Amino acid sequence: MTPIRNVLFIMCDQLRRDYLGCYGHPSIRTPHIDALAARGTRFNRAYVQGPVCGPSRMSTYTGRYVASHGATWNFVPLPVQIPTLGDYMRGAGLRTALVGKSHVLPDIAGLWRLGLDPASGMGALLAEGGFEPFARHDGIVPDAKAELGKPPYNGYLQQQGYDARNAWHEFANAGADKHGQLQTGWKMRNAGLAARVNEEHSETAWVTDEALRFIKEQGESPWCLHLSYVKPHWPYIAPAPYHEAYGPADVVPAARSEAERTQGHPVLRAFQQHVDSQSFARDEVRNTVIPTYMGLVQQIDDHIGRLMKELKALGREDDTLVVFTSDHGDLLGDHWLGEKEMFYESSAAVPLIIVDPRTGSKGKTCNALVESIDLIPTFLDALGAPPEGRWLEGQSLLPTVCGTCTVAREAAFSELDYAYYPAARSLGLDVNQARATMACTDRWKYIDFAGFSPQLFDLQEDPQELLDLGTSASHVATRAEMQARLARWRGGLRSRATMSDHEARLLAERRNTMKDFVIGAW
Amino acid sequence: MTPIRNVLFIMCDQLRRDYLGCYGHPSIRTPHIDALAARGTRFNRAYVQGPVCGPSRMSTYTGRYVASHGATWNFVPLPVQIPTLGDYMRGAGLRTALVGKSHVLPDIAGLWRLGLDPASGMGALLAEGGFEPFARHDGIVPDAKAELGKPPYNGYLQQQGYDARNAWHEFANAGADKHGQLQTGWKMRNAGLAARVNEEHSETAWVTDEALRFIKEQGESPWCLHLSYVKPHWPYIAPAPYHEAYGPADVVPAARSEAERTQGHPVLRAFQQHVDSQSFARDEVRNTVIPTYMGLVQQIDDHIGRLMKELKALGREDDTLVVFTSDHGDLLGDHWLGEKEMFYESSAAVPLIIVDPRTGSKGKTCNALVESIDLIPTFLDALGAPPEGRWLEGQSLLPTVCGTCTVAREAAFSELDYAYYPAARSLGLDVNQARATMACTDRWKYIDFAGFSPQLFDLQEDPQELLDLGTSASHVATRAEMQARLARWRGGLRSRATMSDHEARLLAERRNTMKDFVIGAW
Repeated sequence: MTPIRNVLFIMCDQLRRDYLGCYGHPSIRTPHIDALAARGTRFNRAYVQGPVCGPSRMSTYTGRYVASHGATWNFVPLPVQIPTLGDYMRGAGLRTALVGKSHVLPDIAGLWRLGLDPASGMGALLAEGGFEPFARHDGIVPDAKAELGKPPYNGYLQQQGYDARNAWHEFANAGADKHGQLQTGWKMRNAGLAARVNEEHSETAWVTDEALRFIKEQGESPWCLHLSYVKPHWPYIAPAPYHEAYGPADVVPAARSEAERTQGHPVLRAFQQHVDSQSFARDEVRNTVIPTYMGLVQQIDDHIGRLMKELKALGREDDTLVVFTSDHGDLLGDHWLGEKEMFYESSAAVPLIIVDPRTGSKGKTCNALVESIDLIPTFLDALGAPPEGRWLEGQSLLPTVCGTCTVAREAAFSELDYAYYPAARSLGLDVNQARATMACTDRWKYIDFAGFSPQLFDLQEDPQELLDLGTSASHVATRAEMQARLARWRGGLRSRATMSDHEARLLAERRNTMKDFVIGAW
Repeated sequence: MTPIRNVLFIMCDQLRRDYLGCYGHPSIRTPHIDALAARGTRFNRAYVQGPVCGPSRMSTYTGRYVASHGATWNFVPLPVQIPTLGDYMRGAGLRTALVGKSHVLPDIAGLWRLGLDPASGMGALLAEGGFEPFARHDGIVPDAKAELGKPPYNGYLQQQGYDARNAWHEFANAGADKHGQLQTGWKMRNAGLAARVNEEHSETAWVTDEALRFIKEQGESPWCLHLSYVKPHWPYIAPAPYHEAYGPADVVPAARSEAERTQGHPVLRAFQQHVDSQSFARDEVRNTVIPTYMGLVQQIDDHIGRLMKELKALGREDDTLVVFTSDHGDLLGDHWLGEKEMFYESSAAVPLIIVDPRTGSKGKTCNALVESIDLIPTFLDALGAPPEGRWLEGQSLLPTVCGTCTVAREAAFSELDYAYYPAARSLGLDVNQARATMACTDRWKYIDFAGFSPQLFDLQEDPQELLDLGTSASHVATRAEMQARLARWRGGLRSRATMSDHEARLLAERRNTMKDFVIGAW
């Protein structure tokens, strides 16, 4: 059997689990992602460690919970000391490249304190979170970033003749009205227009092109490629023909109840006041945006089809582990919310498909609770590399992928630092008071809000999470049990990260069999 | 008023709070430490973040709880990224030296991962935890360490003519019996013998000499000196005349009850089986060891007297903040225990005296709950340096020292990772299962043991902590309240350490007033 030599780690941004054919969407067309699921293992209960890009990704890239890496929100730097995917993969002998989005922010203060120049080779690698930025593209390029940052995708568009100060915005993320006037993709009213870019020059196409360029460049040398699409994250605007691939008839009704607006949890109600939530509360918005969202997903699917075909043609299908996932979902009006904060299934749950070409496990599904911190241990396991015992907090999913579903985890955990949102301001919270943590078991989803009553949902009886049992008199015991789980989890976080369990056992052995002297002997 | 320019930070090792005159010991003679208390503020409720040298010190040196720095036990390296006292003091313009013990272990793996050579200037500084090791002496020099480590104190003894392979052991920490035979200080039966070293060459004397050498060398340049005595930590052996300064009549009875041995908490009973605990259970041992322990304390006191006299003569009394504390206590047979693990007052509580020469607060005492993580913020405050808002978890005690006692902390917290002890082995615990955490309020001390019932003591009704209410039916509500405090504390640990609260507020402001675009606008 061909051993695994490469890792193709595909991530979408803001892709809901239920917006894929293989996860049951009634009308979306994602045949190529479905084909991955048919070749591999599809996880039905995969959670991200935080329902926001930055903290979620930092957990995936470090294999640590958010509380254990500290980058609790977008724009909070990841402490430079924490080893990342790049360290682990390079340690296993793989060149490790990023194509697309990472959201890594350099820990400049940390670098300088250690005497490391961010412009040096080591400094630059650390500043990129351990990735070689083969073709980094984080998406979302406001004008200031276009001018200062010189993003490679903007340069690419300009080479293709898209001449603008900010080609990302004016072509790839804007449309034209019937008078030919530019209409910005920032406004959701324009979601139905075709982006002013040929499909082959769109972000999704370019990122796929760059991925293939990297894979070809590698030839027979082993690699780990993080292919990280910026879509279907907003701006919600798609190039033709994907802008009109779906219509209002394809829009699945929002999961929401009137009671959520009038008597919902105080933090939920504060988030419902956000601009995006207010927009998605309107059917007009959902009917305009969601078809485009679906088109963006289908576009990614088509490019994944192209990629997988090329991978096979290059002879890489049999020695490459393929992983497909997302960094969080998109509420799209569920619970009267936009964006992705909070821990509803539309947000904290993600698709996860793992294809190990060595296994005969075709089209398997697994209902165990898995987490995005499990990915690095899975990669190491698939590569036959020794497990790292110091920093990683997850567990390998390979036994599940290759055998039967045997993940032993009684709950999945996810965290939110919402200090930076208008919701925190309207609730009068200072920057260390806006914390929420989810513990989710097979049946119960419990959310601990610092300073507020919790949320509790019975996923078995109420899969749409419409009935908050957070103050229900008949669920006192369940809440206490969930709170105890949360406490055990917090107390058990891997803070002792400079010593592996194996080293700790050796040290205990030495301490208990000291030859030099016996402590306290008479 | 002369501004504070220097910090003299004195720490003893394993010094119990109640073994000082100013803290009420009936017979110990510590006039010079008492004089510090009479000039400054004496804290009656100071706790260390862990009742073991390494984790306690790493908390003091980083200003972070043990869960937040990860060096959970002796020999677990402090992650190199975390800023230390040295960083803060150098940032305030002070040369920062260590004389005596730090217990810092270099994070070699962390250094190499960052491309930092431990032998380089920056590497060496980081490997020393940010201290300039002016005269490092960690105490406890087994033979292997004497040969490999070439400790400076061993070299000093040899220069003074104490000729031995391990002069630390054979002279400073051994006595001679009536036949002139060497009797090792490792054995507590020899605690009553005089150490085979002249007092002026003993560890306590040498460390004081080196401290004075540093202070003189600095002249008018500002400094922070961590003067860190290795005594009265075992080996319990003192040079003449301190070996016979006290006798069995000075031994205060142990705080212990029969019930603690027969029905005590399972973890307590496991620790009671340790060699040191078994020894201290015997009156013969206590009557031999404790007088020597007291002699060692008095010796330190005498040298602090010498030091303070010199400090005054050098003109440094008025511009130097003086802080006196310990890294934890010594159970000395209390609760049928030796050593210092567990969270009894004899162990987790420490003396803390702060002298700010600018204040008129003579001989003030403060009963507020303070912690060793408060020291770095206090130093910065005294120096007029801006507060650091990223990593530090404590609060400045200077307002209390200079005004009225106003520390607002509802509980003090302390942690123990006992994976490395025979107790863990006898309880069948693996290396991540042996965790205990203390939350202590004005009245209640609650200890959460992972996998076991908690301990609870009513410090008001039972100051000796003999009656464990951890399973008392009438204290269900108190335990629930304490457990909730613990949960709030764990959830509020400062994991977001690469961004200050001030920076977070600015970021929230920016996020809430973005000009480029409005997220989710129609």
